[in-house]
Amino acid sequence: MSLINTKIVLKKRPNPSVTEDLFEKITDDIRDLVADEFLVEVIYLSIDPAMRGWISSVGNYSEPVPLNDPMRSFGVGKIISSKNNEFLENEFVVGWLGWQKYSIVTSKSIQMKIPSNEVPLSANLGVLGLNGITAYAGLVDKCCPKEDDTVIVTTAAGSVGSAVGQIAKIYGCKTIGLTSSNEKKLICINDFKYDEVINYKEVNDISSELKKIVPGGIDCFFDNVGGIQFDQIMENLNVGARVVICGTIGMPSYPIPSGPRINRTLLIKRAKIEGLLVLDYFDRYSKIYEKLSRWFKEGKLINKEDISEGLETAPQSLIRLLEGTNLGKQLVKV
Amino acid sequence: MSLINTKIVLKKRPNPSVTEDLFEKITDDIRDLVADEFLVEVIYLSIDPAMRGWISSVGNYSEPVPLNDPMRSFGVGKIISSKNNEFLENEFVVGWLGWQKYSIVTSKSIQMKIPSNEVPLSANLGVLGLNGITAYAGLVDKCCPKEDDTVIVTTAAGSVGSAVGQIAKIYGCKTIGLTSSNEKKLICINDFKYDEVINYKEVNDISSELKKIVPGGIDCFFDNVGGIQFDQIMENLNVGARVVICGTIGMPSYPIPSGPRINRTLLIKRAKIEGLLVLDYFDRYSKIYEKLSRWFKEGKLINKEDISEGLETAPQSLIRLLEGTNLGKQLVKV
Repeated sequence: MSLINTKIVLKKRPNPSVTEDLFEKITDDIRDLVADEFLVEVIYLSIDPAMRGWISSVGNYSEPVPLNDPMRSFGVGKIISSKNNEFLENEFVVGWLGWQKYSIVTSKSIQMKIPSNEVPLSANLGVLGLNGITAYAGLVDKCCPKEDDTVIVTTAAGSVGSAVGQIAKIYGCKTIGLTSSNEKKLICINDFKYDEVINYKEVNDISSELKKIVPGGIDCFFDNVGGIQFDQIMENLNVGARVVICGTIGMPSYPIPSGPRINRTLLIKRAKIEGLLVLDYFDRYSKIYEKLSRWFKEGKLINKEDISEGLETAPQSLIRLLEGTNLGKQLVKV
Repeated sequence: MSLINTKIVLKKRPNPSVTEDLFEKITDDIRDLVADEFLVEVIYLSIDPAMRGWISSVGNYSEPVPLNDPMRSFGVGKIISSKNNEFLENEFVVGWLGWQKYSIVTSKSIQMKIPSNEVPLSANLGVLGLNGITAYAGLVDKCCPKEDDTVIVTTAAGSVGSAVGQIAKIYGCKTIGLTSSNEKKLICINDFKYDEVINYKEVNDISSELKKIVPGGIDCFFDNVGGIQFDQIMENLNVGARVVICGTIGMPSYPIPSGPRINRTLLIKRAKIEGLLVLDYFDRYSKIYEKLSRWFKEGKLINKEDISEGLETAPQSLIRLLEGTNLGKQLVKV
């Protein structure tokens, strides 16, 4: 094997912000494959908010990325050589490939072979990838939306949020999105077909705004943010509401911030809140993928992408994502 | 009808504490029954923490008790006259009878006729009454306990808490109770057979104590309290834990107090929190009652009572309950 690999490795942990100097580009030789391994040429990388947690020193649901290892990342790629009978040259896969040009993996790192079903390769990292699976799991499985339910989503234009909004429409729900700019608000309305969208930076008080636009209250709440947006939406729950916590990007991780206690709201509204981790759904990945790709081909789910060119742009893309300046699923074309 | 009724009516709302002068004893004549009504002689009244909410001016899951009306209360009694073909003289019923000697009701106010199954009448307001139904609904229905799960209960010696602890033992769980005195701690161990009991007034830090006694973490958490006890138990949840909020007696109602945000805990632990209101289980009351009374007759569920004699002791009994000085289910023998 005479290929040279390029990797972006983690050199330091955030303190507390995520900056480009946490990462370093290195090159090295690619070693020979051993039994069961195969070599994947990485084509697209998925940039995700969860990366903020992965590079912190505090383990949460997954171990911290070790220093000097390539940054953990989901990606799609093409198998270019293999010592595994089930993963053959020229097949495409989606899985944990890392921020690098080539990835030596076993089946354990692979989520799925990409079926040749004529969807664009990059969509497998967006609405047909982790983001779509997350949206489906949180909305359909945890929030159990019924026709005519009112569903509210934070980071409504984001890659998870926009999939939630679209799937909720497929289920016949009224959809309300919260987003951070008028540019994103337009995308929410025109592309993702939300019924109502609030640019939370332009309203004084989300709670009163919601009382105006959805006086009937909220049945399902898919939250990616936490903090004040969470608090104000919680004030508008209906009896029997279902809330899923998918992310907390609007809250500092440590020290644990304070906020209004929600015990009495949960009690009075007999509401349910549940945390969602998409890793728990990996055994159902292919089944959920089938549903999502059917909707995608029927035009009911669209995929918006914000693609950055070149592996070396990965750290900057992550920062853009955490700042919320990306428009659509943040990807890196390697 | 020449009977004279004695009632305890609500004269004022708490501001903010519950004091005897909120109530007043009055007498009046009992009017004639109209079609579908029947007259119940009230025998025992159930004194419940939820009463604090019912007398406040802010509606929650039920309307505030109107001023000058008899205090809303669950009770058991005997039908002494009837214009309803389904409720006959000499039958015993459990339902919304109010703080009064006699109650004119229709079937709407009645939860159940008491089957002649040889359990003491007062047990129908304790472990076979709302408290037992609440414990069953919250633990079995919301927390789905499995054998060998660790179940923790606040107000462990209370009438709901002690039923939760006992039902959890029937399900093969390890049970941990939190209580407020060594006297109650002994009752928890000797009568309710908890595996471990913490007198939270005697430990510096509930969370560290739990790490010692249940290093394996908490699978099910039945909370009647909120506040600091809630916070510290939440730090010890297992992945996939189920939490039910049944009460918030340790938290002020208004203004809404602040506390550590739980979003990240829910996310990382993929935990579920749900509010429970026993009213939602009234259509299953008789079915749950059957199970509870079978366990009761088998000696697997015991009922401890703290009975105060005389209708006029009802306000003081409520205050005792809210102060936590009662030992066992607080009842009033009318």
